[in-house]
Amino acid sequence: MKTLLTNAKIFNAFSCSLLDQSVLLEDGMIAGVGEFDPQLADLVVDLEHKILCPGFIDAHIHIESTTLTPYELARAQIPFGTTAIVADPHEIANVCGQDGIEFMIQSSQGLPLDVYFMLPSCVPATPIKDSGAVLRASDLRPFYKHERVLGLAEVMNVPAVLNNDPEMMAKIADAKANNAAIDGHSPMLSGPDLDAYIKAGIQTDHECAAFEEAKSKIEKGMFIQIRQGTAAKNLNDLIRLFEYPWCLRSCICTDDKHPDDLKKTGHINGILKEAVALGADPLHALLMSTWNPAQIYKMTKKGAIAPGYDADLIVLDDLKDFHVSKVFKNGKEIYSSGVLQDFEKPKVDSALQEKLFHSMNMSFVEPDSFRFDHQGVRKAHVIGHSTGSLLTEDLILDVDFDFMNGVNPEKDLVKIAVMDRHHNSGRMSLGLIHGMGLKEGALASTVAHDSHNLIAMGTNPADMALASNTLIERGGGLCAVKDGQILAFLPLPIGGLISAETYEKTAEANEELTKAIHEMGSGQELFMSMAFMSLPVIPSIKITTYGLTNDQLEIIDFLAE
Amino acid sequence: MKTLLTNAKIFNAFSCSLLDQSVLLEDGMIAGVGEFDPQLADLVVDLEHKILCPGFIDAHIHIESTTLTPYELARAQIPFGTTAIVADPHEIANVCGQDGIEFMIQSSQGLPLDVYFMLPSCVPATPIKDSGAVLRASDLRPFYKHERVLGLAEVMNVPAVLNNDPEMMAKIADAKANNAAIDGHSPMLSGPDLDAYIKAGIQTDHECAAFEEAKSKIEKGMFIQIRQGTAAKNLNDLIRLFEYPWCLRSCICTDDKHPDDLKKTGHINGILKEAVALGADPLHALLMSTWNPAQIYKMTKKGAIAPGYDADLIVLDDLKDFHVSKVFKNGKEIYSSGVLQDFEKPKVDSALQEKLFHSMNMSFVEPDSFRFDHQGVRKAHVIGHSTGSLLTEDLILDVDFDFMNGVNPEKDLVKIAVMDRHHNSGRMSLGLIHGMGLKEGALASTVAHDSHNLIAMGTNPADMALASNTLIERGGGLCAVKDGQILAFLPLPIGGLISAETYEKTAEANEELTKAIHEMGSGQELFMSMAFMSLPVIPSIKITTYGLTNDQLEIIDFLAE
Repeated sequence: MKTLLTNAKIFNAFSCSLLDQSVLLEDGMIAGVGEFDPQLADLVVDLEHKILCPGFIDAHIHIESTTLTPYELARAQIPFGTTAIVADPHEIANVCGQDGIEFMIQSSQGLPLDVYFMLPSCVPATPIKDSGAVLRASDLRPFYKHERVLGLAEVMNVPAVLNNDPEMMAKIADAKANNAAIDGHSPMLSGPDLDAYIKAGIQTDHECAAFEEAKSKIEKGMFIQIRQGTAAKNLNDLIRLFEYPWCLRSCICTDDKHPDDLKKTGHINGILKEAVALGADPLHALLMSTWNPAQIYKMTKKGAIAPGYDADLIVLDDLKDFHVSKVFKNGKEIYSSGVLQDFEKPKVDSALQEKLFHSMNMSFVEPDSFRFDHQGVRKAHVIGHSTGSLLTEDLILDVDFDFMNGVNPEKDLVKIAVMDRHHNSGRMSLGLIHGMGLKEGALASTVAHDSHNLIAMGTNPADMALASNTLIERGGGLCAVKDGQILAFLPLPIGGLISAETYEKTAEANEELTKAIHEMGSGQELFMSMAFMSLPVIPSIKITTYGLTNDQLEIIDFLAE
Repeated sequence: MKTLLTNAKIFNAFSCSLLDQSVLLEDGMIAGVGEFDPQLADLVVDLEHKILCPGFIDAHIHIESTTLTPYELARAQIPFGTTAIVADPHEIANVCGQDGIEFMIQSSQGLPLDVYFMLPSCVPATPIKDSGAVLRASDLRPFYKHERVLGLAEVMNVPAVLNNDPEMMAKIADAKANNAAIDGHSPMLSGPDLDAYIKAGIQTDHECAAFEEAKSKIEKGMFIQIRQGTAAKNLNDLIRLFEYPWCLRSCICTDDKHPDDLKKTGHINGILKEAVALGADPLHALLMSTWNPAQIYKMTKKGAIAPGYDADLIVLDDLKDFHVSKVFKNGKEIYSSGVLQDFEKPKVDSALQEKLFHSMNMSFVEPDSFRFDHQGVRKAHVIGHSTGSLLTEDLILDVDFDFMNGVNPEKDLVKIAVMDRHHNSGRMSLGLIHGMGLKEGALASTVAHDSHNLIAMGTNPADMALASNTLIERGGGLCAVKDGQILAFLPLPIGGLISAETYEKTAEANEELTKAIHEMGSGQELFMSMAFMSLPVIPSIKITTYGLTNDQLEIIDFLAE
C-alpha cells in the first residue's frame, strides 16, 4: 500500500525550513520525499498546502499524573498531534515496584501512540522507607531488554550521584552499558557540583526555571527539557531557548499534566501555541518538539520526514494555533477533522492486572486516629503552605488543642495525616498545615508523592476517616467529604494512581472534585498541593508515615517544646 | 593528577561560540569547565587567551593512501591537531581480507591518535574477481565486537543496495544490529534511487561535488562529509555548507591524502585554513571538524569541551591560519611548539605481521610479457586519460604495432599492464593508454584500486619488467625505472600498500618519485593516476588482470575489429 501526500509544506528538520514537496509512504515508513507520479500511489491525499510535520514527542511525562491508562492517554493525545511520549513510571513503581513498570509496558503495547519508558532511578528517592517498593539496579536491569525502554529516568537523588553511591552508580553504569539515555533532575545545581553530576553521565534537565540556568547547563552539554505542565510552568521563563543556538539543545515536556488541563489546553500543540504567542520562532518550536527529543532518546526513525523514517506525521493548519487536522501513524490516517479511528486496547496479563488493582494494603481507620492527645496551648511545627509553591515553611505556632483539637479554620489551620497503605503496618502520622484555605470537611488521596501513601487533610476526624475509608474500600483515588457526605470521588483503582475509566469521564470527575473543593471554602488546586506535602526532598517541612521531616530529611517531633 | 588550563577561549560546541573559561582535567577527562581555584590543580597551564578546541576528527580516511602505518600517521597528524580519525581499511582488506583489518586494528592500538574503523563493505566492489580477498557479511560481523569499530564503511556498490542484494543487505543489517554508523558513497545519486539508498540505512556521503547535490542529500537526512584530499578536492564547490543550517549536518574528511601533501599542507587544520580563506565562518568550521563527526559516529565522549568528555584538546593560535601550538591527549600535553612527545609503537601479533609483509603472491615476469603479438596497423581500444580526472574515454585508435610494438611517445601512447599478485595465477593483461605524458622508462606500483594488483606502465618491455620485478622482489611499493636503472623506489612492504619507514622518509621517497616522473617526461602525478586505471567502477574503460572493462563492467577485446 503506497500513500502519496501531495501539496504539503513539509517541515524539514535538517534545514529547519518548510519545503513544498510530496511524501510517499509505504509499509508504515517514509519511502521518499520529492515529486512523484500520483499513478504510483494506491491512495493520494491532498494536504491543501497545510504543514506536514513529524508527530510531536513529549520528552518527559509521568503518565500517572494524567490519572489515565496509556490507552486513554493515547485517545486524549493523538488528536493533539502527539505520536510519541517518553514516560517515567516513577509513581507506579513507588507503589508496585517492578510490577508497576511491567504493567505500564504491557498496557501501552501496540498503541498508535508510541509510549517509551525511562526506568525510575530513585525508588525511593530518600532513605526514608515510606514507599511500596524499592528498586535496586538489579531490579531495573532486566527491563533494558525491552525495545521501548530508552534509559534511566530522572536522577533526582543528586547527593547519591555526587557521593558516588554504589547503587546509583550501578544504575548509571547499566544505562551506559545499554547505550541508553540518562535523564536528570537538578534544580539550581551549578558549578563543580553540576560538573560532577554531568560527568557522571546525566544528560538532561527539566527543572530549569531561568534562562541563565538553562544556558549554563546547555554550555556544559546538557539537553534542556522546557517543562510546561499543569503544576510547574517554565515556558515563559525559558522562552529564549527557542532562539538559535539554544533551540538545538532544547525540547518540550509536560512532566505532570492533569486530564482536565489536557482536555482544556491540549498537549505539546498547546505549548507551541503559547510559545509562539510569546514570540518563539515557530520552526524552532517544531524542531524542539520533534527532531530534538528523538535525538536525545536515540529514536533513530522518529522526528523527521525523510526516507527510512517512521511515517508518524501530523497536519497542522498553521503555525500560530497549531491546530491539528490530521494524524498519520505508521503511514495510516488515524485521526482526521475531529474523528479518531478506533484502536485496540492493549491486553495485560491477568495476574499482573489483579496485583495492580489491589494496591491498598491497609485496614480501615477510625476517626480517633485523626485526634491529637494534646491539651491546652502548645508550640508545634506546622507545615506552612504557600499557594503555587511546593516549598513549605516550618511554622512554629501556638496551637490551642482545646479548640477543635488544634484545628482553626479561621486561622487557615487544618489537620493533615499520612497513613501507610503499602505494608499494612498501621503506621501513620498526624500534623497540622497552614495556608490551604479549607474551611470544612476533608480530602483524602492515594496520590501523595513520591511514596503514594494515603494522605488526608481536613477540619474534623469524622470526615477525614470517611474520606480515607472510602479510598481504602474502593482501591484508591481522590475523595472530597463534607458533613459525612461524599461530595466527589474519582476512583483510581490501578495502583491507587490511575483511573480505569475513559479520558472524558476522568476529566469530568476531576472537574467535580474542583467544584467540591470550592464548596469546602478553598479556591486552590488542593489535591495537587496536598500530594506534594509528603515529598520530603522538597524543603522545608513535610509529613511522612513516620512523622514530620525537616530539611535534612530527619524525622522531627510535632511539638516544638 | 589535576591539570588546570587557564586563560583559554574555549570553543563551546553546544552554543557554537568562544567562552572565556578555564578547564579542569582529571583522569584523562574533562572534570569541569568554568572558574577554578588554581590551588586545586597539580599543574596549571596558562593558555594566554589562545583558542582551546576539541581535537580535530577526520571523518573518513583511507590510511593506506598515506602509505603510512597508523603509528607514523599519528606522528604526522598530531602536530596538526588531529586526535581522532575514522578509517576505512578498504585497500588493505582488498589485499589481505580479515587479516588486513586485524592488522590495522592491532597496529593502531593505544596510540595518542584515536584510530576508529569502519568495516569495508565492498571487498570486492564489483563481480570481477580481481582482488586478494572477498569479505562477506559473516567475515565482517566478528569485528563489531571491537570498541574502535564504529560501523560499515562506504557502501559504494549502490546497485547492490538498490537491488536488495542479500549479502549487502546482511552487511547493512549487521551494522544496524550493532547500533553502528553506515557510510555512503553515492556520487550524483538523486531522486527515488537516492531515497531508496537512504531508506536502506546509508547515513553519509563524501562524494558530493556541488552544493545543490549536498543540500538535497542533507534535506533527505544524510550527513555530508566535505572531502578535501590529495586527489579529490570538493571544498571550493561545497563552501556554502559552512553556512547555517548546513553546517549542522556537514563535516570534513580527507578520504585519500598522500604523505608529501600531508607534510606540505597539514591535515584538517589546513583544510580549515583554506575554508576560512574562502569565507567560511571559523566557528562553524570548528564545529564541523570536532562535534559533528563525533555525532555521526556516536563517539559519545569526543568532540566537545564539557564535563565527562575525553580531554583531547588542542590550542590554536588563531582562527585564520589554524596553527596548532599545543595538543593534549587524554589530559596529557603530548605536543607543544613543534615538539611531539615520544609514544609507544603498537605491537602486532608476529604471525599476522608475517602475513602482511608477504602479500606478493606471484612469480617474476619476463620482458616478453609486455609485448603485443599483433602486427601492422590495427584498430584498438585505448584508455583515454585526462589529467585531473578519474573518468577515462574509450578511444578507438589506429595503432601501428610495427613501430615500438604499439607504443608512441610522440602521440602520448604507452603500454599499461595489470598482473595478478594475489593468487600466483600468472594472469595478466596488456593494453595501451593515452594522455599520461610519459616519454621514457616505466612505472610499476602495487597500489592499484581497488584490487591492488601489480600495475605497470611504460614505453618499453625491459623497463616495465624491471620495475615490476623490483616490486615483486621487495614486497611491493612504487618504482620508477629508466634505461634499465631504478630512478626512485618507495618500498611498501605491508600489504604492498604501506611503508615500514618513518613519515619523513616516506614523504621524501614520494618526492623522489615525483622528481623521477619529471625526468621521464611527465608533469603529472602519474602514480595516483595509474592507480585508478584498474578501478572498473569508474567509467568508461579500465584495465584488470582479465583485460579491458567497459561501462557495463564487461571484459572487452583489446582489438576493436
